[in-house]
Amino acid sequence: MLAGVHLMFFEELLGNRSFTDVEIRKIYGSDETEDLNFPPAIVLKPNTPEEVSAILSYCHENQIPVTPAGARTGLSGGALSDHGGVLISMEKFDKIIEIDEKNHQVTVEPGVITQVLQNAVKEKGLFYPPDPASKGSCFIGGNVSENSGGPKAVKYGVTKDYVLNLEIVLPSGEIIWTGANVLKNATGYNLTQLIIGSEGTLAIITKIVLKLIPHPTHDMLMLVPFYDAQKACEAVAAIFQAGIIPSGLEFMERDALIYTQAFVGESSIEIAENHAAHLLIEVDGFDPDQLMTECEKIVGVLECFETDEILFADSEAQKNTLWSLRRKAGEAVKSQSMYKEEDTVVPRFYLPELLGHIKRIGTKYGFHSVCYGHAGDGNLHVNILKGNLSDEFWRDELPIAIRELFSEVARLGGTISGEHGIGLVQKPYLDIVFGETEMRLMREIKKVFDPHNILNPGKIF
Amino acid sequence: MLAGVHLMFFEELLGNRSFTDVEIRKIYGSDETEDLNFPPAIVLKPNTPEEVSAILSYCHENQIPVTPAGARTGLSGGALSDHGGVLISMEKFDKIIEIDEKNHQVTVEPGVITQVLQNAVKEKGLFYPPDPASKGSCFIGGNVSENSGGPKAVKYGVTKDYVLNLEIVLPSGEIIWTGANVLKNATGYNLTQLIIGSEGTLAIITKIVLKLIPHPTHDMLMLVPFYDAQKACEAVAAIFQAGIIPSGLEFMERDALIYTQAFVGESSIEIAENHAAHLLIEVDGFDPDQLMTECEKIVGVLECFETDEILFADSEAQKNTLWSLRRKAGEAVKSQSMYKEEDTVVPRFYLPELLGHIKRIGTKYGFHSVCYGHAGDGNLHVNILKGNLSDEFWRDELPIAIRELFSEVARLGGTISGEHGIGLVQKPYLDIVFGETEMRLMREIKKVFDPHNILNPGKIF
Repeated sequence: MLAGVHLMFFEELLGNRSFTDVEIRKIYGSDETEDLNFPPAIVLKPNTPEEVSAILSYCHENQIPVTPAGARTGLSGGALSDHGGVLISMEKFDKIIEIDEKNHQVTVEPGVITQVLQNAVKEKGLFYPPDPASKGSCFIGGNVSENSGGPKAVKYGVTKDYVLNLEIVLPSGEIIWTGANVLKNATGYNLTQLIIGSEGTLAIITKIVLKLIPHPTHDMLMLVPFYDAQKACEAVAAIFQAGIIPSGLEFMERDALIYTQAFVGESSIEIAENHAAHLLIEVDGFDPDQLMTECEKIVGVLECFETDEILFADSEAQKNTLWSLRRKAGEAVKSQSMYKEEDTVVPRFYLPELLGHIKRIGTKYGFHSVCYGHAGDGNLHVNILKGNLSDEFWRDELPIAIRELFSEVARLGGTISGEHGIGLVQKPYLDIVFGETEMRLMREIKKVFDPHNILNPGKIF
Repeated sequence: MLAGVHLMFFEELLGNRSFTDVEIRKIYGSDETEDLNFPPAIVLKPNTPEEVSAILSYCHENQIPVTPAGARTGLSGGALSDHGGVLISMEKFDKIIEIDEKNHQVTVEPGVITQVLQNAVKEKGLFYPPDPASKGSCFIGGNVSENSGGPKAVKYGVTKDYVLNLEIVLPSGEIIWTGANVLKNATGYNLTQLIIGSEGTLAIITKIVLKLIPHPTHDMLMLVPFYDAQKACEAVAAIFQAGIIPSGLEFMERDALIYTQAFVGESSIEIAENHAAHLLIEVDGFDPDQLMTECEKIVGVLECFETDEILFADSEAQKNTLWSLRRKAGEAVKSQSMYKEEDTVVPRFYLPELLGHIKRIGTKYGFHSVCYGHAGDGNLHVNILKGNLSDEFWRDELPIAIRELFSEVARLGGTISGEHGIGLVQKPYLDIVFGETEMRLMREIKKVFDPHNILNPGKIF
């Protein structure tokens, strides 16, 4: 709980943009991570960097925990107020400040929905590629804080590859820009890249300058059914080895597609008894003939991997249906049961091996998993469904199984989060990939920015 | 000077890979920065991370300055031992450890020459794009330390966009990996990106894992003479606005090309009296027809900017000649006189304005400058020639003029180094782009890694 004097300070500062009623606090106490809920003592909705600064410097002086939150679509609990205190929702920072067509840049506030940003720049013929599955609801500020990926990352890179400059507010209340609005920068330490992916533990982002690229004018999409999920994973690296970089290369296990079709009430995709997994493959560019050539090459590669008949999307509507099935897979699978989602990533050639470990460990410990993800990046989301498993197993045994899985991931040169972040729920596993020295460096960097540990305390570390 | 006991320790550790003779120390006392020379007390050439660790932990305990050096091709004095002490030359770390064709990655030691690395991966059909003008002599480790760019950056990004993971030795002697060998990573703070561009002030890099991409199979190159240098700069942004991303877009002022042809004894390019500047424009890809279409589009754009006849390179030999002229421009211009080189970078649409400021300030203070650079990135190298200018002017007045120029760069949203780093010689100007808060953050990050300030002391800060 927060002392009355503090609540009064915030209420005076933000007036009707501060909220202490239990219902609102409860809503803001959850993100999309499992069934967790940690209501903050107060929800604040500042709308200027100066207001964020006033809140942070007050909390810094009074050692009050602050959780910054975007659209709360995160999957690692990064926006959960598990230490109570203040939750700062960035939803009022919802302006696209400037689309700079002359320089192919956009300056945007962190509370803009990623898809809204994408559509706005697309109207100018420009492209901001990184879009997580939640692009219709997530905020660009959250994407920066988690270094989000999404299906286009395989060709176009992740959020960190597009951020040129950030305006941030430090826990001390100081407002700074981390870099410059330029494509290359060798001027001092890269504070911009340090803030990206720091999950709201170092500073609060109030403005973002992003690089844009010309929007591709054409794309082609195919859905490929495999009789063997391992073979589908093997086909992934083979496509790259043929010299093709698809603009999307997604993997979906049989159950993921079945659950998702049921969830969205769609039945256009016929899933035969012997379909074990699908790859959704997109190529994009500026020249339809070249895309056709690439598709032919891909089909040539796939011939070695025992597929059923390939479905080529023949209309925008069908493309949208296929992408929507992939994007809704998370929601659909999770609607089945309580779940835990792991965000494994390995060098892409080891994907079949990773899938083998997931299933082997599932059999060993007795859990059912449904996998899908950005196979082209070697990034597989592993959804473990609680179903009929006991609470004891879920609490005591499962973490041991997950630790075993992550150890295999690390052994393959991979790591424990590709795009969801560590936040609250992956924290216990961080020692698998980082030793005491790396952890010490990170903790001390945290102290440099946030000496009183007020900003998202207990996240990552 | 270094006490005899310290020298003995190092000589015992490295035997005939330690050097104290004055000639060798003098050679290792220079990089390519102006005419500066700061011989270290001893030159060491370790060849394992463990040896680097032993040197660093000894220096850490005994507070001995350590300057890490690559091929010493740097232009900001980052490898100069201006504090004396130990210079660690990484030249024995010269192995390409593994080209992982299955995952499109390479693991390499920092002392491998960038071009050697490029050629080795090209033999496997793979491409490592970032190559500074000095690619035939610079080390990949130096590229990482300075976040080097080069002509391909405009399409393919800079060094930071290819580094997946680094093995580093901390001043304490601890050896760690900063990340994982994966294409996306949301696991803790991005230590990898923090080390990139940190100019040897935080740690010494001993292994580098790089992402590779399929090597384009075709390219086309054209040299475009302009009657007006400003117009050449204006054409740069216009090319991107037409939706084209060239794989090279270089600017050369008239004098740069004249000096370079004279320097390399080449005369195949006819430079007419009224040619004020040239753009060298390359497109690359996998489909010659598409490249032809792109070239036609570029020519269409250029029609609005008053050019003389465009030279299309019609053979590999001619392409090599043109690129070699561009790559040798730095050496050629600098062979004219003592010089100072500034590495300005702005959002690319402001390039004409930047060039205007350079020339205006030159006229005001009375210096001659020759400009060339990676115009597609907004990155212009400004070479100020001493010629007949007095030593007093060079020492007292010129820094004021440079400060004025950098202030205009900052006003345009740019910064003071695009790819050369801050090192020793740009340090006095850092306050133009960073305030006290940003500087404090950087200094404290430095302390986290290097509490005794032994590693490249006096660089950046």
